Amino acid sequence: MAIRLGDNQYGKAESRVVRIYRDTPRHQIRDLNVSTALRGNFEAAHISGDQSDVLPTDTQKNTAFAFAKEKGIGAIEDYALTLGAHFLDASPAASGARISVEEYAWERISVDGAEHDHAFVRGGSGVRNTIVNVSGRGADRRTHVVSGISDLVVLKSTGSEFHGFLKDKYTTLPETDDRILATSLVARWRYDHTEVDWDKSYDGIKQLLLSQFATIHSLALQQTLYGMGEAVLAEHPEVAEIKFSAPNKHHFLVDLSPFEVENPGEVFIAADRPYGLIEATVIRDEASDAGSAWHAVPGFC
Amino acid sequence: MAIRLGDNQYGKAESRVVRIYRDTPRHQIRDLNVSTALRGNFEAAHISGDQSDVLPTDTQKNTAFAFAKEKGIGAIEDYALTLGAHFLDASPAASGARISVEEYAWERISVDGAEHDHAFVRGGSGVRNTIVNVSGRGADRRTHVVSGISDLVVLKSTGSEFHGFLKDKYTTLPETDDRILATSLVARWRYDHTEVDWDKSYDGIKQLLLSQFATIHSLALQQTLYGMGEAVLAEHPEVAEIKFSAPNKHHFLVDLSPFEVENPGEVFIAADRPYGLIEATVIRDEASDAGSAWHAVPGFC
Amino acid sequence: MAIRLGDNQYGKAESRVVRIYRDTPRHQIRDLNVSTALRGNFEAAHISGDQSDVLPTDTQKNTAFAFAKEKGIGAIEDYALTLGAHFLDASPAASGARISVEEYAWERISVDGAEHDHAFVRGGSGVRNTIVNVSGRGADRRTHVVSGISDLVVLKSTGSEFHGFLKDKYTTLPETDDRILATSLVARWRYDHTEVDWDKSYDGIKQLLLSQFATIHSLALQQTLYGMGEAVLAEHPEVAEIKFSAPNKHHFLVDLSPFEVENPGEVFIAADRPYGLIEATVIRDEASDAGSAWHAVPGFC
Amino acid sequence: MAIRLGDNQYGKAESRVVRIYRDTPRHQIRDLNVSTALRGNFEAAHISGDQSDVLPTDTQKNTAFAFAKEKGIGAIEDYALTLGAHFLDASPAASGARISVEEYAWERISVDGAEHDHAFVRGGSGVRNTIVNVSGRGADRRTHVVSGISDLVVLKSTGSEFHGFLKDKYTTLPETDDRILATSLVARWRYDHTEVDWDKSYDGIKQLLLSQFATIHSLALQQTLYGMGEAVLAEHPEVAEIKFSAPNKHHFLVDLSPFEVENPGEVFIAADRPYGLIEATVIRDEASDAGSAWHAVPGFC
Repeated sequence: MAIRLGDNQYGKAESRVVRIYRDTPRHQIRDLNVSTALRGNFEAAHISGDQSDVLPTDTQKNTAFAFAKEKGIGAIEDYALTLGAHFLDASPAASGARISVEEYAWERISVDGAEHDHAFVRGGSGVRNTIVNVSGRGADRRTHVVSGISDLVVLKSTGSEFHGFLKDKYTTLPETDDRILATSLVARWRYDHTEVDWDKSYDGIKQLLLSQFATIHSLALQQTLYGMGEAVLAEHPEVAEIKFSAPNKHHFLVDLSPFEVENPGEVFIAADRPYGLIEATVIRDEASDAGSAWHAVPGFC
Repeated sequence: MAIRLGDNQYGKAESRVVRIYRDTPRHQIRDLNVSTALRGNFEAAHISGDQSDVLPTDTQKNTAFAFAKEKGIGAIEDYALTLGAHFLDASPAASGARISVEEYAWERISVDGAEHDHAFVRGGSGVRNTIVNVSGRGADRRTHVVSGISDLVVLKSTGSEFHGFLKDKYTTLPETDDRILATSLVARWRYDHTEVDWDKSYDGIKQLLLSQFATIHSLALQQTLYGMGEAVLAEHPEVAEIKFSAPNKHHFLVDLSPFEVENPGEVFIAADRPYGLIEATVIRDEASDAGSAWHAVPGFC
Repeated sequence: MAIRLGDNQYGKAESRVVRIYRDTPRHQIRDLNVSTALRGNFEAAHISGDQSDVLPTDTQKNTAFAFAKEKGIGAIEDYALTLGAHFLDASPAASGARISVEEYAWERISVDGAEHDHAFVRGGSGVRNTIVNVSGRGADRRTHVVSGISDLVVLKSTGSEFHGFLKDKYTTLPETDDRILATSLVARWRYDHTEVDWDKSYDGIKQLLLSQFATIHSLALQQTLYGMGEAVLAEHPEVAEIKFSAPNKHHFLVDLSPFEVENPGEVFIAADRPYGLIEATVIRDEASDAGSAWHAVPGFC
Repeated sequence: MAIRLGDNQYGKAESRVVRIYRDTPRHQIRDLNVSTALRGNFEAAHISGDQSDVLPTDTQKNTAFAFAKEKGIGAIEDYALTLGAHFLDASPAASGARISVEEYAWERISVDGAEHDHAFVRGGSGVRNTIVNVSGRGADRRTHVVSGISDLVVLKSTGSEFHGFLKDKYTTLPETDDRILATSLVARWRYDHTEVDWDKSYDGIKQLLLSQFATIHSLALQQTLYGMGEAVLAEHPEVAEIKFSAPNKHHFLVDLSPFEVENPGEVFIAADRPYGLIEATVIRDEASDAGSAWHAVPGFC
């Protein structure tokens, strides 16, 4: 019987890097959660315990913090690209590097109508993130950027129907032409290339996701997601494909008839579990090859 | 040996009541987490299992949902006061009722610069809440309202010092005149009476907490909290006392000197545990008697 | 208007102290989560920012780790008592100290039927904990120990009824003489004094709680809790009173009749929220005065 | 520009199915968390909102509960296989079904030395799970079973080294020949076929993982994982490959020298974040084709 090492990956997860820019009295803050990993030909480390090819996870952590000062932190995509290229270069045995960064948004505290210079309150809806995968060496170097947003909690109090579905012996769900539609959206989009104004692209996509969710008259969460994805691809040529993972956060109409109280779509109970879970990809035909772009991206098919 | 029942309380926790107002095309949403409880002379239920004095927790839940339609939901304090009085009246064996309500904030999604009528995104900083305690019957009826905010995550990138502290054999902390100060604030304030414009009072206090955090030059988190409380009591005569529970979310300066990189207050690691935990009460001398106001309020001394 | 500082407390929360005893090849492990706090006359720290009375939370953390070696860790109650007395002595302005310790249980991994010397798997049901409150100086020194268990998840598949309860307009709950009873129990008991074999007392009480839960034919969760408390007080004279906080983790019988499937108490859905929450105290008449024993103990009335 | 639907999947997540077997006084309990999903040709549902091919997630939930009685629940693998085949048959537009089941372990409460018939305490280390992927129709039907364990928290207090690693400018980690090694293990193994005694295989693999963790003298977490996987493949011919995801839960030696206290490997601080994260696959050369076995399995590369 021959046994061997298959796919593998190692790194430091969840370094909480906080960078303050204080060159002027008006400070800037970048508040990140950084995970880095290397993959490749690490048989010796696994089979004989020889670590001579292994750049320690502690070193990866040190580098993430040092680069926050040495290279600075602008858009998280640029920071992740810099780290990914560095780690692959620093690790001759590696075939690929994966850098994942989440950014927590802060808003300036308003004092007497003016934004404060150095006091902030955590804010914003949704958590911005990026996952960069770098592989290959020299002419074979390939770089993929998948950016996204998570925890974008949205709700429509009308404009959502669900009917005409397939029925079998176990179907009891009544059809409806008016319900609450709510989700905690995760969206991740793969960029076609890296010549992108990252902040501008993110801001535009986030706003488009919100406005599409609001304005699409929904016949199902699937149809809403597809419409959101279609709009992103139509308006953002830099995006090759977009994937959604959306729990259907059920809001059930409460039966108040035992108390002789009518309830025409006004009182709901927000349920926890179980929940519907809808996942979908919208892609353009002429999209570039995905390569390792979706390597180790959580939650997608 | 004589054994007896001591303090007791029972109820339904965390009913997720969602109320949509759809009388006009511009919908309103109230998204609540409601916990209700009764306490009192329930010896029979505990000792012999006789439930004839026990209004089931399921009934309490039903009532919370029915009242959302029958009485409506305005300020959470009004809704909680109505529920509290009702439950105490409905339960002859009870000596007190406790109603706790959290409210999750929703903002309208902006579409082409206009607020949408029925599409929302979860937003806002901090979770508004109230705890109402009602006790006694007839002329002995007493009602207390403690309102508050939790999860208000704030950070100052400068304007915080910590030095001159007591030292002993186990002290290694260096003194500092410039550090990051960050916390996830919980504040709860006891109202002196119930003749209050609840929404206006909440909005004013929240804004005051934020602006005080921003503008107080901090010599310690204790001093910041006291200053915040002092301002609330000074500007809000309807508040008798205010309590704070504030984890000191440490941001440690990262030592980059091994890499020959200077770090003058720019790169920090945000730590999880352990954390400082500062709790303080600010109270006015002529405050009304607290009675059962702080009954079963979490996290305070 | 006169404003002043009221109750206050500060300290270091959640120091994760792990102590290995390796004097023999058969290692022992103590895995703790330690929170310490001081309270008292800290007006200067709050009002003027003068920290000269404040023993930093960082020093408290250092002491918790140093004592793990200097004093050792036996029963968590002894470790907490030592820390509490030390901190009150070390802080002249303090009027009281509060030490809270949780202990995570580890079991030895079994290899070929024998317990391994230094390899462990996290195990056990429930988390042991203690809260020690020390106050006063000299002849006024008072020491209270409240120990307990949390996260003790138990379930009975029969032997539980619920009927004969109070009904009103909002009652729809059917009566039942057979249901699932399940909870995630929190129990905390106050010791009458400190001359206790802590480990033996804890083990005896935990086993008694489990066996009483199993054998009491339940007419309500209240009655089960009271029976559990009564047994603890009867068999453990060192215990003055015991408090329970028990969510009623509802398991609802699923209606399978639409599919022409009978369901005589066999298929249930385990619900998340809302849940019943039952809290009760069982106390002996001749119990010692509680003093500050329940100071800042979470979740109890 | 041509835009189209790519990979997609929908279903009901986290149905908490609890099945009691009460045919004899000695009850049995199966406590599950069930997630089901369908994938395939669902363009109409996404693009035009036509739901005629969509078996609602509510129907999927109903089926999971009904089958708990109609088919019974033995090994979770058998239950998942039955559900997977059913859903694919019930949904003509689907190309595949994915069933994920977690099982929570319960132990009988011991009363006077005897196991109780119908009272249980949550127990056991680790959560057993399985993910079944079924695809194709008729002769093209393929069925894959990936089973596993999560949350298996283990620790060695010695017998772990880490040295000889690659160093660069950012390396500061000292080499060590004695440290604590701890992880919260996730292991998932792909079965070569479905002719398996599932319970026996699971029990054997779990015990082997534990004993290998205990007895392998570790030169790195990678080497420990590989050794664990190698042993599983050697002793379990029914397993084609095994994947691990293991956070390196760091325990840092505390520097007590400022207090003139020695600390020869006795007092540690258990850290939260960041943590190393080691992922590895061990596979046999002659393993069957993985097909869709790893479809939508979380956390693996």
